[in-house]
Amino acid sequence: STHSNTNIRIKLPVVCFTWQIAMIILFGVFVRYDSESDAHWPETMIQNNITSNTENDFYYRYPSFQDVHVMIFVGFGFLMTFLKRYSFSAVGFNFLIASFGIQWALLMQGWFGSLDPSTGKILIGVENLINADFCVAGCLIAFGAVLGKVSPVQLLVMTLFGVTLFAVEEYIILELLHVKDAGGSMVIHAFGGYYGLTISRVLYRPRIHQSKHLQGSVYQSDVFAMIGTLFLWMFWPSFNSAIAYHGDGQHRAVINTYLCLAASVLTTVAISSLSQKTGKLDMVHIQNSTLAGGVALGTAAEFMVSPYGALIVGFLCGILSTMGYIFISPFLEKNLKIHDTCGIHNLHAMPGLIGGIVGAITAATANELDYGKQGLINTFGLTGKLQSRSPSTQGGYQAAGICVALAFGIVGGAIVGGILRLPIWGDPADENCYDDEVYWEVSTTDTQHLHYIL
Amino acid sequence: STHSNTNIRIKLPVVCFTWQIAMIILFGVFVRYDSESDAHWPETMIQNNITSNTENDFYYRYPSFQDVHVMIFVGFGFLMTFLKRYSFSAVGFNFLIASFGIQWALLMQGWFGSLDPSTGKILIGVENLINADFCVAGCLIAFGAVLGKVSPVQLLVMTLFGVTLFAVEEYIILELLHVKDAGGSMVIHAFGGYYGLTISRVLYRPRIHQSKHLQGSVYQSDVFAMIGTLFLWMFWPSFNSAIAYHGDGQHRAVINTYLCLAASVLTTVAISSLSQKTGKLDMVHIQNSTLAGGVALGTAAEFMVSPYGALIVGFLCGILSTMGYIFISPFLEKNLKIHDTCGIHNLHAMPGLIGGIVGAITAATANELDYGKQGLINTFGLTGKLQSRSPSTQGGYQAAGICVALAFGIVGGAIVGGILRLPIWGDPADENCYDDEVYWEVSTTDTQHLHYIL
Amino acid sequence: STHSNTNIRIKLPVVCFTWQIAMIILFGVFVRYDSESDAHWPETMIQNNITSNTENDFYYRYPSFQDVHVMIFVGFGFLMTFLKRYSFSAVGFNFLIASFGIQWALLMQGWFGSLDPSTGKILIGVENLINADFCVAGCLIAFGAVLGKVSPVQLLVMTLFGVTLFAVEEYIILELLHVKDAGGSMVIHAFGGYYGLTISRVLYRPRIHQSKHLQGSVYQSDVFAMIGTLFLWMFWPSFNSAIAYHGDGQHRAVINTYLCLAASVLTTVAISSLSQKTGKLDMVHIQNSTLAGGVALGTAAEFMVSPYGALIVGFLCGILSTMGYIFISPFLEKNLKIHDTCGIHNLHAMPGLIGGIVGAITAATANELDYGKQGLINTFGLTGKLQSRSPSTQGGYQAAGICVALAFGIVGGAIVGGILRLPIWGDPADENCYDDEVYWEVSTTDTQHLHYIL
Repeated sequence: STHSNTNIRIKLPVVCFTWQIAMIILFGVFVRYDSESDAHWPETMIQNNITSNTENDFYYRYPSFQDVHVMIFVGFGFLMTFLKRYSFSAVGFNFLIASFGIQWALLMQGWFGSLDPSTGKILIGVENLINADFCVAGCLIAFGAVLGKVSPVQLLVMTLFGVTLFAVEEYIILELLHVKDAGGSMVIHAFGGYYGLTISRVLYRPRIHQSKHLQGSVYQSDVFAMIGTLFLWMFWPSFNSAIAYHGDGQHRAVINTYLCLAASVLTTVAISSLSQKTGKLDMVHIQNSTLAGGVALGTAAEFMVSPYGALIVGFLCGILSTMGYIFISPFLEKNLKIHDTCGIHNLHAMPGLIGGIVGAITAATANELDYGKQGLINTFGLTGKLQSRSPSTQGGYQAAGICVALAFGIVGGAIVGGILRLPIWGDPADENCYDDEVYWEVSTTDTQHLHYIL
Repeated sequence: STHSNTNIRIKLPVVCFTWQIAMIILFGVFVRYDSESDAHWPETMIQNNITSNTENDFYYRYPSFQDVHVMIFVGFGFLMTFLKRYSFSAVGFNFLIASFGIQWALLMQGWFGSLDPSTGKILIGVENLINADFCVAGCLIAFGAVLGKVSPVQLLVMTLFGVTLFAVEEYIILELLHVKDAGGSMVIHAFGGYYGLTISRVLYRPRIHQSKHLQGSVYQSDVFAMIGTLFLWMFWPSFNSAIAYHGDGQHRAVINTYLCLAASVLTTVAISSLSQKTGKLDMVHIQNSTLAGGVALGTAAEFMVSPYGALIVGFLCGILSTMGYIFISPFLEKNLKIHDTCGIHNLHAMPGLIGGIVGAITAATANELDYGKQGLINTFGLTGKLQSRSPSTQGGYQAAGICVALAFGIVGGAIVGGILRLPIWGDPADENCYDDEVYWEVSTTDTQHLHYIL
Repeated sequence: STHSNTNIRIKLPVVCFTWQIAMIILFGVFVRYDSESDAHWPETMIQNNITSNTENDFYYRYPSFQDVHVMIFVGFGFLMTFLKRYSFSAVGFNFLIASFGIQWALLMQGWFGSLDPSTGKILIGVENLINADFCVAGCLIAFGAVLGKVSPVQLLVMTLFGVTLFAVEEYIILELLHVKDAGGSMVIHAFGGYYGLTISRVLYRPRIHQSKHLQGSVYQSDVFAMIGTLFLWMFWPSFNSAIAYHGDGQHRAVINTYLCLAASVLTTVAISSLSQKTGKLDMVHIQNSTLAGGVALGTAAEFMVSPYGALIVGFLCGILSTMGYIFISPFLEKNLKIHDTCGIHNLHAMPGLIGGIVGAITAATANELDYGKQGLINTFGLTGKLQSRSPSTQGGYQAAGICVALAFGIVGGAIVGGILRLPIWGDPADENCYDDEVYWEVSTTDTQHLHYIL
């Protein structure tokens, strides 16, 4: 029976309409163009003695923005299509919650970060769009833990609170503690990972085995998932550099991420092959652990980690992430009742922590010899009140940032998990998990064909 | 029987060769590099006191160009793969007609817009490539209305005339009336939509039900189509900003389009769910109506519509487009004999008209307070002879632009539809519509498998 | 039996770990950031009187770099998924060998080209990343010839030697002979093509027909392959312009490649249709020969070939490449025992040679009237010791470059082929070729389903 998933027809439209109307009202009250996207820009140029449009931040950031945008919608969306009968939901719900989340993120991040003090307005430009995409990435990571087990209404609720928590956590880490985390190892990946895992724990379904026949992949769905993997992998250098410092900062973040990811691929393949009696590779590892290096360099990508440092991080993360799939995921499910559909612990949570640690160590050991005087100031933003903060102090703050991300993920996830357990969000019955037919019109031909091949 | 589709072997190669040879000759006579792509550029720099290569338009436009290019070939191509047995034709014929169309567009648009008066040559640069891609988009939209029902030879003829009509219509709207339409709500979407719908009306097949078993999707083909949807959706900010004014114009067009599209997704999901007794979502809506916001902001994206204005447009278009699939498409087929395979009326024609209206209203209400003096001049191009044109007058011209696009689409479509009815283009028999086997080598294994799953 | 492919479990991890550790050590000793990606960049700006970060090469090259990156991982990877049961290996091994290859390429190309004489360090920036991707492209081309017939360990060996040979060949052609080849017609495509074909000859399997049932495509795998085709096709303008001269050089290379590829599509369709009794199109031709124009303009894309010149090259290459699939590939297999799984002879080797010839002729006929004095110097890099080299002399050197590429491909391929014949690399048995099950965990459901549809 599908008793517990009957009311989507009213709930989903109500939530979508309510939230979209709320967004329109709040944007009407609060959101305006910033000086670089406002039609008064020609006057701004004259006032600030800017002689070329190339100095508009748009041209520094737009190519990276579009790459990040592809990661959010195609990367995350297709990575989760690997289940044999949940591809519509994977790519469709990813589309839905990201589209809602980016709007709410512009508001939340704006109130905390881009509020013009004189007018009380949030002024947005291309960097805000990137940050909104980043914020949503945290929620999409959490989606991976509960994929197939929650309704789209639950996902929208999870995104509403996820974005809210993210904006507060980000404000504390980046603004109050002045921690650097351009690619979001802590702010995005560790937070999003533990947020999702804790929610999955609270929503634990002891009888999920009733949907076991739908919990694997088929040949075609694994190829679709590789589209997601590759677009994430290829554009991760843009992710880690998108909001890095103009010039050498962005340039270096790209080089480091490129190298780190390449090393992850080799060690992922090695461990995957070692883990099977016959030496055969497991698509789950290739689809996920190859990306761990990008996560783990999220904090340090713009630092002077040096090319071989980036390779070492990628080397270790490929190993640890793949071993996570082999050893940790089964342990978490069996002993801690944390069921993690996509293995986000291995791809995001753990590598995110590693990334925070790598960042803290790299920051603590930074020095003028490696960076130059101005380079040190630019890279760590040590100007104004912070000009006397030493690298080792910065390292300490970086470490504190890890704890904040972790605390927000776990405590926030516990609270939101509790809210999601309320019996009003139309969650699917245990025997209907991982099944598109609960939410999508699927032709009977397809259903029969699926039953045949199973 | 396949009596009416036998002669492709001679006709298709003859048309391809003839047209490609004609292109070579016409390019030889007319087309040269513009000053920014010619090897004399270093001298041009000195003459014009340009000190940095970054001022070459290439660096302002190239990232957007590549995004638009992806929309044309992967976006349109894969969006149309949703039919269970027409994916080869969808992506293959899209590839063919776009490749031909961009060449013919460079010539047609060049004669009308980029002709160097002193030499009689068409001088091309990256902006011309973008405009050629845009022009072809109009024809690919029209392709969506007749998908599965015409031969590749008919498509090439339709593209030849479509590009020709487009260039004239564009010249009248953009040059003679001096209407702004950077993302082509009127010039591309309304024109292309009504062009395709009128052709489909003229080619109406009363016995198309003989191919009914092939007219739906299967599970995998719907996932393939989502690749097209997402690349269109993600890169639409580039589409609407690609030829916008350098600096704030491009920047603002991106922000507006990003927001508008996000709102479309939520209302599309809401209406799709409401429309089904069980509240299930329909993939057709998600694949198409989520994009309506991008179309509807094609004219106004670079204007100061303000962020909440963009959200409102997206909100309404998601609703209207989805309701179009539910109510208008069946009505058009039953009452007006307009069969619209991809529902281009709901994704392009109607949102294109809305976009034209939004643009006219926004232009008419533009003022110096919102834009600044120079901003108003830059955004609407009100220099030289046009410097005395007021915003409200501009609004009137914008409205006139809608009528021109509509007239060209409908009258042009009627004429070209008549030409396509001539029994010399090898159109498929009614019982062979939507079937790749008419035009492509398909293994017998695949054919048997398809018959099995049907 | 699978007697000859049993030892992957040890060999593959050992090779992956050994090579990745070697990379870390060598990067530690040799590789550092260049001046534009080093944190000392603010000081460099002051020293060199650079006033804007936009002058950092990152902003000239990064959009093209990301496009090239997509071509390497999604383009090549998905193009090779066309086989019905080898998609995992196609996209997965492509991922593996490219990830290894780019690291080794940075070292090899660095030793030959970017070594800082005072410190003995290789200094890397975004242009090095592009060149590493280019270098790997040569090996991925070679992969196409042996697809399905070699083990991943063999592929890693082939890549190790392939990158090594490439770096030497490239050094001779580009540095010693000072030949221009920005898009690599000779250096990448002709070399990679003949390298792969020669290896395939040495590894010839007389009993490959035992895997004949797996050697074709199925409907879905052909659609997946079109993803690869289209991303290669769309981003080829970036490939040919990525390392071209700033400003007009990059601009012109994009225009030429765009046009050339468009012409290839039309003639490919024409010949494909002509080649079948019924006029039906063959997916193999559309997937491959449409790209031949991009290969053939690799050398001359940045030259003043003029728009119609680009169309002529595309016109001819579409014809020749498609006829290669129809006539030459069967001939090579039957008479020369060269089995070429993906038809790289027709897509890379032969068009690469044509590209070298087109480049030589265009260079030899270059003159000050067409290029301007400074344009001629910039385009051909005729400064310093080379300032007296005439265009016709340059044409001669270009022709010599073709011979060097060819020699390295054939001689190198023969030697590496011999190494790959050693019975220690775990190559698959004849009856297990083209079968993912040898290397990947595949569910039994999938296997049964495949056997059913065959």
